[in-house]
Amino acid sequence: MTRKLRSLIAFNPGNRPDLLSDGQIEALAGMTDLLRRAPVLDWRDPAIQPLLHRTEILVTGWGAPKIDAVLLDAMPKLGLIAHLAGSVKAMLDPAIWRRGIAVVNAVAGNAVPVAEFTLAAILFANKQVFRLNRVYRERRAMAKPWSKLAPGLGNYRKVVGIIGASRVGRRVIALLRPFDFTVLLADPYVAAEDARQLGVEPVPLDELLARSDVVSLHAPSTPATRTLIDRRHLALMRDGTVFINTARGALVDQDALIEATRSGRLDAIIDVTEPDELPPDSPLYDIPNVFLTPHIAGAQGRETERMVELVFAEIERYLRGNALQHRVEAVDLERLA
Amino acid sequence: MTRKLRSLIAFNPGNRPDLLSDGQIEALAGMTDLLRRAPVLDWRDPAIQPLLHRTEILVTGWGAPKIDAVLLDAMPKLGLIAHLAGSVKAMLDPAIWRRGIAVVNAVAGNAVPVAEFTLAAILFANKQVFRLNRVYRERRAMAKPWSKLAPGLGNYRKVVGIIGASRVGRRVIALLRPFDFTVLLADPYVAAEDARQLGVEPVPLDELLARSDVVSLHAPSTPATRTLIDRRHLALMRDGTVFINTARGALVDQDALIEATRSGRLDAIIDVTEPDELPPDSPLYDIPNVFLTPHIAGAQGRETERMVELVFAEIERYLRGNALQHRVEAVDLERLA
Repeated sequence: MTRKLRSLIAFNPGNRPDLLSDGQIEALAGMTDLLRRAPVLDWRDPAIQPLLHRTEILVTGWGAPKIDAVLLDAMPKLGLIAHLAGSVKAMLDPAIWRRGIAVVNAVAGNAVPVAEFTLAAILFANKQVFRLNRVYRERRAMAKPWSKLAPGLGNYRKVVGIIGASRVGRRVIALLRPFDFTVLLADPYVAAEDARQLGVEPVPLDELLARSDVVSLHAPSTPATRTLIDRRHLALMRDGTVFINTARGALVDQDALIEATRSGRLDAIIDVTEPDELPPDSPLYDIPNVFLTPHIAGAQGRETERMVELVFAEIERYLRGNALQHRVEAVDLERLA
Repeated sequence: MTRKLRSLIAFNPGNRPDLLSDGQIEALAGMTDLLRRAPVLDWRDPAIQPLLHRTEILVTGWGAPKIDAVLLDAMPKLGLIAHLAGSVKAMLDPAIWRRGIAVVNAVAGNAVPVAEFTLAAILFANKQVFRLNRVYRERRAMAKPWSKLAPGLGNYRKVVGIIGASRVGRRVIALLRPFDFTVLLADPYVAAEDARQLGVEPVPLDELLARSDVVSLHAPSTPATRTLIDRRHLALMRDGTVFINTARGALVDQDALIEATRSGRLDAIIDVTEPDELPPDSPLYDIPNVFLTPHIAGAQGRETERMVELVFAEIERYLRGNALQHRVEAVDLERLA
């Protein structure tokens, strides 16, 4: 029997105390020779130094300390970085790929809860559930038919616009199939034929904004996509359109969004903002037609188990020499969040 | 060419001014010989009398005047009652079936939006979206990880309990398939083998209540199911369970539900209450962990178009002599709402 590959864990348990359960750490210690049960918080920690040159697999998570070229020199045997979360950009130096180290992440596992949250948001948006909840509680009386108060009410034959056929965007598109919607897609990287295979109508962004009853944003956040949705784009949406953002706050001109929602012209369901934690005086807390959640669409609580299971299955593939399914390539870095 | 069958429309447009569009009335006038464009509000209306004995198809909707044996005597040629809404019980006399008149309704079309609303409610319930929206707005600061504040947060591997494999219940079960849930079903009318074919685990009601993270009620409201969920049942649910009611308020001991939610032990998403319109002093308006909507899960606004289209397709089948797909039988009356 060959020896087990040696592994180390690095993440900040302060951010996610529930990221790895004791049982999962035991599972990792079963698959690999886990050099240390406690996660590495700081590469300069003297207790870590003797382990670095033996490490062959590095399991990282939210808040892991940055991995740069100097550290890589100290880890000559490193062959796999298995990241339990989504974005690896801030943590990893491009040198990693030049050295032939494989990188995998759990983006696919994080996409699942984001898409699920988005689906529920779309169904409630078309039904104007948040508005009717608020109005009923304020009036303490019914006002039937509600369709008078909320024109176009309902989920039948609505137009849903998806911006970005990212992993999340594609999953939302798949989840929308059982419903009576026309789904539009704006994504400059997706050919019209591929969009049709997804069951959506490919359209330019401006047309999507003008035609949709609900617009949901699923583009990656990069310098190139900063304020991808600007004041002009918001103005293209028809009165009463619901704008959903479960991607990143930086993708939207937030001041313009505040204006468009505060006037009552647009509604919004917003899980992400810029900055991520709003200042206490942000108007977004109080605009009645903005349903605001604190960046929870992604994996929370037990949803992180799915990501861990996905990455552990990937480590198993690596150990057996099977093809990896969740590899992050150097070329992806620019286009991905 | 044979002559067209003669039809009449009866419903209360005050309840649903948008129930039939002008285009749909034209369509009906194309398929049939529509004796009068305006809906009948009162069978005693003298203008209606000469039309009754010629009527062969009666198209009814919400708030239609009751059809009793005396009226049926005046309509000897009536062969089909096509109801544009769900429940026909209050409107129709059992004599109708004894006379061999076919009855069809749009229950199947109304089940669609109810199931869609329920799906969104389940996804948001497991994610504790309403609580986290409220807490974030109150604190005006994040409190990461949210899973500390909301234990068991997330949609992964949750147990969803469906009470009643009604049309809505079955559709909810079908919509839940793409998600990572264990779905339990309590329904005394469904054999264990049939439940397994639906992809759910058949369990007694008490077990369902004790095991589920979210409980959604889809039983018909009849005298036999009044307070089907009573104080003892609510006590069986674990702390933090979310109870969803999109069926009827009478199915639940509402005082017991108010106690269980006011104490914070259970959460609830409640679209229906007893009475249907709550008095202004009802505590249900203000319990923070009760998300209350004003009986909107069923077809609203353009969702009623789906019901009309379904019934019109059924009238087409009747006219062509094809088998009807949405027939209501006399024996269904007791078991159905």
